[in-house]
Amino acid sequence: MPVIAVDLGGTKISAALVADDGALLAREHALLAGRGGDDVASLVADACAALVTEARTARVEVPASIGVAVPGIARAARGTVWAPNIPGWDDYPLRDALHDALGDDMRVVIDSDRAACILGETWRGAAAGARDAVFLAVGTGIGAGILVDGRILRGHADIAGAIGWLALGRPYDARWSSTGCFEYHASGPGLVAVARDLVAATPAYRGELRDLAGDVTTAGVLDAAARGDDIAVRVVDQAIELWGMATANLVSLFNPETIVFGGGVFGPALRFLDRIADEARRWAQPIAMREVTLVPSALGGDAALVGAARLAMDAEDSA
Amino acid sequence: MPVIAVDLGGTKISAALVADDGALLAREHALLAGRGGDDVASLVADACAALVTEARTARVEVPASIGVAVPGIARAARGTVWAPNIPGWDDYPLRDALHDALGDDMRVVIDSDRAACILGETWRGAAAGARDAVFLAVGTGIGAGILVDGRILRGHADIAGAIGWLALGRPYDARWSSTGCFEYHASGPGLVAVARDLVAATPAYRGELRDLAGDVTTAGVLDAAARGDDIAVRVVDQAIELWGMATANLVSLFNPETIVFGGGVFGPALRFLDRIADEARRWAQPIAMREVTLVPSALGGDAALVGAARLAMDAEDSA
Repeated sequence: MPVIAVDLGGTKISAALVADDGALLAREHALLAGRGGDDVASLVADACAALVTEARTARVEVPASIGVAVPGIARAARGTVWAPNIPGWDDYPLRDALHDALGDDMRVVIDSDRAACILGETWRGAAAGARDAVFLAVGTGIGAGILVDGRILRGHADIAGAIGWLALGRPYDARWSSTGCFEYHASGPGLVAVARDLVAATPAYRGELRDLAGDVTTAGVLDAAARGDDIAVRVVDQAIELWGMATANLVSLFNPETIVFGGGVFGPALRFLDRIADEARRWAQPIAMREVTLVPSALGGDAALVGAARLAMDAEDSA
Repeated sequence: MPVIAVDLGGTKISAALVADDGALLAREHALLAGRGGDDVASLVADACAALVTEARTARVEVPASIGVAVPGIARAARGTVWAPNIPGWDDYPLRDALHDALGDDMRVVIDSDRAACILGETWRGAAAGARDAVFLAVGTGIGAGILVDGRILRGHADIAGAIGWLALGRPYDARWSSTGCFEYHASGPGLVAVARDLVAATPAYRGELRDLAGDVTTAGVLDAAARGDDIAVRVVDQAIELWGMATANLVSLFNPETIVFGGGVFGPALRFLDRIADEARRWAQPIAMREVTLVPSALGGDAALVGAARLAMDAEDSA
């Protein structure tokens, strides 16, 4: 039976009617446009209702389950969501709101976008069939979706996988207090901030990033490094070292068979995947390092959507 | 029904007849005395046979299951063991050997000592009842036993939890290649090595570690730090920083409810547990840090033995 999958981002909603084999039969999109609270839940419910109608029109079985990936923490037991980028979603009762809008017969399963990404990639993506795998998402922030023996690692309070907080270098620096050490230096905005700091500290520098100072982007830094700009090269060298150390720590602790690199930065930083592997190899438990494969996301922007479908199907299978 | 538990160490065997409630009804001990290969398996089998006899003599139910904790990697599917400190145990078929000695009716379950320690502590020790918990063992080496939603984290090749390999500081140093960065500096021998290096690099140093240079122990360094010796204080300050960073990384990645500190160094380093918690608090994801409790092992040297009993009972429950 097809299910409805929803990928709720910080700025937009992507939803789809998904067949048993993972095929996307129909899609819906909506922009949050600054909305918060119940208005966002209504947008989600509208997208789901539209997909139910499309299923009826197309004469496929009408879905009875919805999987939702959210940009924050999903409290699995209560069906509530903490999403820092959606106003009013400190502990928002999304499951109840969707039941109110769509009926109690509709099964609703909610999980974090990083959990959904690794479910998607192990079902229909770059880690297909893996039972021990990690999705490392590097974009505006850094997070990890972690699969342990086929099950999502949630932790005691549903916030496992906060890999942006990895401690990777002494001594502690107070600038890291709101993002964590790893994310501060190696997220998309982190690379730009490191570049700005280096430009400011290098008066003799006459390279291309100097002119871009006001609006340099992560891709701009990565491209400048490819052209040999010396500050951009230093920024990227440090990022590769940190991405490699974080990869090594995942390998030593989890002994996964696959680590999938995704998020907006992977993307353009995928050209460095071999160098990240070389760096990880220096640090990681050597037997575990030989067991792991590092791969780019195969589903790209649809990873969380495909994983949300898998969430819904898993709930049906276990019901 | 009682079970037999075996804690196979690198130098000795500790075995016990264990009741349903975790009580140790009878114990057996043996020294490996340099033995390897089949001889070690025979020692284990002899200890088990003696405990079966003791059960008969005491007129308690005769055990039908054995749980064995081993100092290395237990390949769960095949029942073989890699144990670097036991000659000839590169991939030793321990389960088959015990079946040969004790009969195929005896159920045999084998796991690593770090897995057994966290099972013991969550069953009858410092983390009783926890489903997401970590046993951080700091002794000659450093390892972690990790429980995720009530199940042991094994990884793809049964070597998860190799936390001694954590990457905690750039740039990479080739001295770490056989132990990992964290273990090199913060294991028992690591503390001594760091102290020796500092003494050698400080010609003006006249403190107590100078006289001990040849045979300084981990406990000696910790005690000297408590007396204010300046090199010992520097060694301990660095170790606390590294233990705190590793603790923070466990908290951010696993979101556990309890981390149990054990092994030979905790032990004497438990006096620093508050300082380790303060250090971890600077680095870790803050919500996850508030959820975790850091505690000393309650079972001490019996943690792996009690956990081995739990292993055997869990196998009976699921049979």
